[in-house]
Amino acid sequence: MGNDKCYVALALKAWKTQIDRADKLFGALSSEEVLQEISPRRNRLLYLWGHLTAVHDAMLPLLGLRERLHPEFDVAFISNPDRSRSDIPSHEQVRGAWGVVNAELWNGFEKMSPNEWTLRHSAVSEEDFAKDPSRNRFAVLLSRTNHLSYHLGQAVLAPKSERA
Amino acid sequence: MGNDKCYVALALKAWKTQIDRADKLFGALSSEEVLQEISPRRNRLLYLWGHLTAVHDAMLPLLGLRERLHPEFDVAFISNPDRSRSDIPSHEQVRGAWGVVNAELWNGFEKMSPNEWTLRHSAVSEEDFAKDPSRNRFAVLLSRTNHLSYHLGQAVLAPKSERA
Repeated sequence: MGNDKCYVALALKAWKTQIDRADKLFGALSSEEVLQEISPRRNRLLYLWGHLTAVHDAMLPLLGLRERLHPEFDVAFISNPDRSRSDIPSHEQVRGAWGVVNAELWNGFEKMSPNEWTLRHSAVSEEDFAKDPSRNRFAVLLSRTNHLSYHLGQAVLAPKSERA
Repeated sequence: MGNDKCYVALALKAWKTQIDRADKLFGALSSEEVLQEISPRRNRLLYLWGHLTAVHDAMLPLLGLRERLHPEFDVAFISNPDRSRSDIPSHEQVRGAWGVVNAELWNGFEKMSPNEWTLRHSAVSEEDFAKDPSRNRFAVLLSRTNHLSYHLGQAVLAPKSERA
């Protein structure tokens, strides 16, 4: 018997570890703190949080789980840089979407069999997948976990507020 | 037949992708640039690069590949914060160690069978591993890939030099 379940379980655990770190870091922010920049003239925490939410939301159809919940996040947090638009989702909207999107992903992850993780993701055609079967759902899980870590490394740099 | 090889190959590809990004980012730095801080009063790029080198060096015995090549990096880049010591390895020493350590790791990775990735890593006892078999080498690979991504997210924030 192969160790398929073991590899998938470990990759899911790595995902969950980073999600928990993000929940803790972003979830603790006040409405003033979320507007702080990670570094002078760089993205604000709200932008990073919204960006991660949009990228995770896009994983829902990519992994064949369901249609997107918040496609409207892309214009605010993916296709345009921070501070280029005034009408971006609010702190509360990002917080709510972050929770719902990740819960929906986790719900789907738990139902996927090891074999389903090796199926093609929806952004690659059947022809291209036949040529390169590494473009599968497991690859998406690993790359999005790294993407989350990448931005968490940035988010921790934001100056802490002076609080009692 | 299981998909063991597929999962391991994808995790190795994810590792290699991050290593290549780091090679490109750190490898392009001049001796002045490597002393830049990623953000005001935060770690310098040289410290991050040395830190990643030390952590990767420690993976060699952790994965049962060989003894460490640069245990002396720990005092400079793990157990002490940046700027607390004057006698840290130089730019050239870090660059050299980074290349050698990662080449040695990759060399070992390529020889490991899928099953070997599910063996315990050397920092967990046989008793503890029996209780929690998720503490294996594959878990180390995933967590160190995320660790690398985390610090890469920080390293890209360092101000670019003005060059012709």
